[in-house]
Amino acid sequence: MIFLFTDFGHEGPYMGEMEAEILRRAPGVPVVRLMVDAPAFRPDLASYLLAALAKRFRPGDVCVAVVDPGVGTEREAIAFEADGVWFVGPDNGLFEPILREALDLRTFRIAWRPPRLSSSFHGRDLFAPVAARIARGDPSALEPCEPTRHPDRPDALAAVVYVDRYGNAWTGLPGAEVPRGARIRAGGRELAHAETFGRVPPGEPFWYVNSAGLVEIAVNGGSAAALLGLAPGVPVEVVEPESGAEGEDGEAAES
Amino acid sequence: MIFLFTDFGHEGPYMGEMEAEILRRAPGVPVVRLMVDAPAFRPDLASYLLAALAKRFRPGDVCVAVVDPGVGTEREAIAFEADGVWFVGPDNGLFEPILREALDLRTFRIAWRPPRLSSSFHGRDLFAPVAARIARGDPSALEPCEPTRHPDRPDALAAVVYVDRYGNAWTGLPGAEVPRGARIRAGGRELAHAETFGRVPPGEPFWYVNSAGLVEIAVNGGSAAALLGLAPGVPVEVVEPESGAEGEDGEAAES
Amino acid sequence: MIFLFTDFGHEGPYMGEMEAEILRRAPGVPVVRLMVDAPAFRPDLASYLLAALAKRFRPGDVCVAVVDPGVGTEREAIAFEADGVWFVGPDNGLFEPILREALDLRTFRIAWRPPRLSSSFHGRDLFAPVAARIARGDPSALEPCEPTRHPDRPDALAAVVYVDRYGNAWTGLPGAEVPRGARIRAGGRELAHAETFGRVPPGEPFWYVNSAGLVEIAVNGGSAAALLGLAPGVPVEVVEPESGAEGEDGEAAES
Repeated sequence: MIFLFTDFGHEGPYMGEMEAEILRRAPGVPVVRLMVDAPAFRPDLASYLLAALAKRFRPGDVCVAVVDPGVGTEREAIAFEADGVWFVGPDNGLFEPILREALDLRTFRIAWRPPRLSSSFHGRDLFAPVAARIARGDPSALEPCEPTRHPDRPDALAAVVYVDRYGNAWTGLPGAEVPRGARIRAGGRELAHAETFGRVPPGEPFWYVNSAGLVEIAVNGGSAAALLGLAPGVPVEVVEPESGAEGEDGEAAES
Repeated sequence: MIFLFTDFGHEGPYMGEMEAEILRRAPGVPVVRLMVDAPAFRPDLASYLLAALAKRFRPGDVCVAVVDPGVGTEREAIAFEADGVWFVGPDNGLFEPILREALDLRTFRIAWRPPRLSSSFHGRDLFAPVAARIARGDPSALEPCEPTRHPDRPDALAAVVYVDRYGNAWTGLPGAEVPRGARIRAGGRELAHAETFGRVPPGEPFWYVNSAGLVEIAVNGGSAAALLGLAPGVPVEVVEPESGAEGEDGEAAES
Repeated sequence: MIFLFTDFGHEGPYMGEMEAEILRRAPGVPVVRLMVDAPAFRPDLASYLLAALAKRFRPGDVCVAVVDPGVGTEREAIAFEADGVWFVGPDNGLFEPILREALDLRTFRIAWRPPRLSSSFHGRDLFAPVAARIARGDPSALEPCEPTRHPDRPDALAAVVYVDRYGNAWTGLPGAEVPRGARIRAGGRELAHAETFGRVPPGEPFWYVNSAGLVEIAVNGGSAAALLGLAPGVPVEVVEPESGAEGEDGEAAES
């Protein structure tokens, strides 16, 4: 299966043209538009989103990920196999969390270039064809190389990385690493945990672990982004529960 | 063929993740994003929309329908075969008109649960896998049961159930049941029927039977929603033509 | 491969219903939503967009193109094979540039009608089924005929034909026909050429040849549409470089 992860939106011909390139070159391989509204021009934020979604990929899957403000500049084009899953895209930090977590990693630069490479759409002209080749088991486009690494970046990002159409704000914090008794400080307020929307009074902001496994800030029946002024890049903070005061389901003691 | 009908929007990873779950489990079965902007959190309204679209399904088709404000609560998960077409989704009234109209009906609860069931995304974790099983002819996830019924609901809903991006307002009224000489009262005005947009002067509101077979309120070259203050849930009224005064194509006598 | 090009948007059931009709009738043929936000109700503008995107089609491909304000009126439904690629849609000028450029052309009217033809959705009821037949090699729906031609239209349109979600304005001018030293007058300003976004200071408008081969007006990090008041239909002008003053990459001498 080939997954597409971009900031292109569904508008225009961009996603369709990428799909067509893949379908021509890897007939019969299912292509899925996984997400097309990753934070625009922000590979640093999108990287945490992609790493969370990638946990559901399986060996043999190929993911073309394009959040690429440097398209047309000298940034390298890379591909790598991380624990059996292939990723293809720009060498701009978009894959940092995945590269860091991989136990079994083989990294490459894309040496192949198409006969005609547009200056603005490497997703269609370069990354899609290479992903199709990889899906067919043809690695001839690749040469071993070390991608640029970003050791300064945190393993978990205490900031908003995505706001969905209901105004729910996804953070770059894996829910597995935040105790349920912790509070999340966001937009000047400290929010308690709740298991689901239904456990919270309407209009009340809270945090929960969303379907991608990330800490998400939400309001039952409202927009957390509007209420708390949240947008991609806005920092949040984990307020750890006091020792012995840890509770369950948002029952943390007030500090 | 497997149809997806949701209120998730195309934003975020929701539709892509559902598609991936199905494609993994039912390889080769075409998956179609039929509609992803059903009225949000309103299974009562969406139910009439789904019933209208479902008239084009064929025996063997499977429809995953998810408008599910109660996800993560105790509401049941159901599947049923209605005249050869399968439906999978929450037991919250979303299927009431289809259940009511079915001549040959077999109903089930979904007894199977995945190893990991998120609290907020049963579309991906529960309904999509079960739909894939059903498409493969495997009913092992299912146990016979009676879904919750809603006898109080009308067969046809005299209210707006959807507003499209041009501001046309779909109602829950099947066009086959409304005489062409009738007027529709909506937003304080009484609207005559027209066969198509081209038969009406620009800026003039009218009603017609849309491609889903429902009464739709439209304005040639304008937004009926804006002009008449229409939104999902807003009631409309059928004003029957006086006996003997029935006309054709909006030629009804003024009352 | 079957491409869909429409002004329907992804909202509502329109694209899904078209896809389903094709998938039922041409199983195994990949269907791609190429573009669904062509300029609404403007086949005259959309025609230049379609012609540019069509340059990537290959013999055997079928494109269903529906920008069709006259649906439900007497306008003809047509299909044609242009240099091995099939097109299906309304006879309203949407195909004029493609018809004009074709070296090898066979044109037809669609003589077949479905048992039930809605007044508002020929994309689903007429064009999609015919495209599927053609993809299967069945031409029985077709009768030779001459489509309506529009000799008054220019080969290249000096006007905006599309604005993408970042506010970049596509024109109907093929980049191959505009010297790099030329300036484009748009919204009261004269814009120089640049190879890519990265070569231009933030906030500065410029023109470049986009991935569809068309002259596009853009602002690095901003919205050209907002800055220059551009929208589909707004005219632009090519200001040819003075003889001997032609430069490279936006280095044209000021006039």
